[in-house]
Amino acid sequence: MTVGGSKLQHLNLFIAVDWGTSHLRAYLCSVNTTGQLTLIAQRDGPGVIRDKQNFEHTLIGVVAPWTSEYGVLPIYMAGQITSSIGWKETPYLACPINPESLLSGAINFDCAGNKVSALPGTKCTLQNNLFDVMRGEELQILGFLKQNPAYQHGNVLICLPGTHTKWVLLKDGQIICFKTAMTGELYDLLCHQSVLIPNDCEAGEFDWHAFEQGCELTLGSDSGNLAHGIFSVRTRQLSKELTPVQAKAYLSGVLIGSDVRAARHASEWQLVNNSKVVVIGTEQLNTCFTHALNCIGVQCLEFDVKEATLSGFNYLFNSNKTKQI
Amino acid sequence: MTVGGSKLQHLNLFIAVDWGTSHLRAYLCSVNTTGQLTLIAQRDGPGVIRDKQNFEHTLIGVVAPWTSEYGVLPIYMAGQITSSIGWKETPYLACPINPESLLSGAINFDCAGNKVSALPGTKCTLQNNLFDVMRGEELQILGFLKQNPAYQHGNVLICLPGTHTKWVLLKDGQIICFKTAMTGELYDLLCHQSVLIPNDCEAGEFDWHAFEQGCELTLGSDSGNLAHGIFSVRTRQLSKELTPVQAKAYLSGVLIGSDVRAARHASEWQLVNNSKVVVIGTEQLNTCFTHALNCIGVQCLEFDVKEATLSGFNYLFNSNKTKQI
Repeated sequence: MTVGGSKLQHLNLFIAVDWGTSHLRAYLCSVNTTGQLTLIAQRDGPGVIRDKQNFEHTLIGVVAPWTSEYGVLPIYMAGQITSSIGWKETPYLACPINPESLLSGAINFDCAGNKVSALPGTKCTLQNNLFDVMRGEELQILGFLKQNPAYQHGNVLICLPGTHTKWVLLKDGQIICFKTAMTGELYDLLCHQSVLIPNDCEAGEFDWHAFEQGCELTLGSDSGNLAHGIFSVRTRQLSKELTPVQAKAYLSGVLIGSDVRAARHASEWQLVNNSKVVVIGTEQLNTCFTHALNCIGVQCLEFDVKEATLSGFNYLFNSNKTKQI
Repeated sequence: MTVGGSKLQHLNLFIAVDWGTSHLRAYLCSVNTTGQLTLIAQRDGPGVIRDKQNFEHTLIGVVAPWTSEYGVLPIYMAGQITSSIGWKETPYLACPINPESLLSGAINFDCAGNKVSALPGTKCTLQNNLFDVMRGEELQILGFLKQNPAYQHGNVLICLPGTHTKWVLLKDGQIICFKTAMTGELYDLLCHQSVLIPNDCEAGEFDWHAFEQGCELTLGSDSGNLAHGIFSVRTRQLSKELTPVQAKAYLSGVLIGSDVRAARHASEWQLVNNSKVVVIGTEQLNTCFTHALNCIGVQCLEFDVKEATLSGFNYLFNSNKTKQI
């Protein structure tokens, strides 16, 4: 319901939608006169792979309580929803790129009266000529840099764990290149749909000791060992070394150890003893990746992914508003 | 229907059931006076993971046309059906073991009047103290050795691709140790339930060039590269280098290259230039693994897995009959 004067009153409200492969997270945000963001409310919905062909309906449903209260609002949308498997396909901006310039590749459209800006992704070509892409993580990096301006200078390696881990090399605040590992997606598939974990496995508390054992297996391997090592998730249950609940944490360790080991061997950067990596994820994943990185002598700065995301959206909202004034 | 004299008449008929994770294959076999096997008929059914809690009913249904024609028959059963996720759990016999002695660990029971022998699996402990297990493949090895007695001598490395690849080291006809890679299961999960291959991808012909490209990526990698490399299945479609149909063959190459690379780095055997490996699988998988092994300078002898399986069952049937006489 839009009432007289509401547009003026709500000039500093916007909706940020982080719509990834596995989850939709919508945030109602308010920005004060100094540009600082307050999160007013959050609503969740299905990720891109669970919501095929139904995107517009999902978005309208998720934002309905807010637009009904405040009238139409600007919506910023990032993540896999803007990819070829999503709803509105935006371009991939080529690296090197300063993430401050993301709006230059946005696609703007109308959805039930709301003006939606679908943000672009980024792309790069690696030393082995493989092409890589990301969508959403560049926004988190932008948000992190705005909160931590000291990292705008020099070389910085950022690890963003999630459905797909992104390892991103920055130089003087520009994204130079990045690599993807499907660690989170592999974990979900193997945990829920393979012979490794029994179907009736309870939730249970995450077993850090089992996680560390899994990490050690792949981190310490000559061959990478993922192809052969992963089966030990089953055999260590058969031998009663692990319960099914422990086996899930062990599987997480095997996969994260393999991911970190591959990042250590990447030719695009030097991940040697005493390096420092910025890890931007949930608290649980930050702890997991920090543990694995510490095992190879690398120090970490952990940063919360939601805070990074909101900070990134906020920068874009403010810069867009400044442009419009 | 059993009629007078049928028992004598059908003394040389038996049913062999190869019941793995993904498929059930039942064979009606006839053995002549010199011990040679003729396959009379084959019927298929669901594998262990698709047939939870319904095993007895499934087996009775599969063999019904044969028992109805010939009366009760001896049934030999091998594969994951005898594991902890299957129906009748048989022990794992410890390596080193001669596969001729498999019947010593069989569990015999009655199923709708038929005498069923559920064969055991085998287990070993590897150099990194990981425990490994197999069920069914030791029978295929037995069958191969009976068809190729020259391989009863010296060191032989056998590769058995399938849902799970088994790499098995023999010495003088004894199984010394083995390693498992979940290559086939990973392929199925990633092909059908991940972001890598579109849901609506057609079947299409297997693209050998794309397969070779995938193989090269992981075989030629310093890090093993599976954790990071697998995402190229998606990016090479985004960049139009691969169609979805080609991407499936490329994914197969990435996974099989990784599997062969891990086998090459295994400390339990020396897989060097001019080694020879026996590959026992389906025609398609034999060709795939032979290609990857040739890429690292290893020669292969290919042997059909169905022939190996039937030969193994036949050896056990004949030796059991001899014992009973």
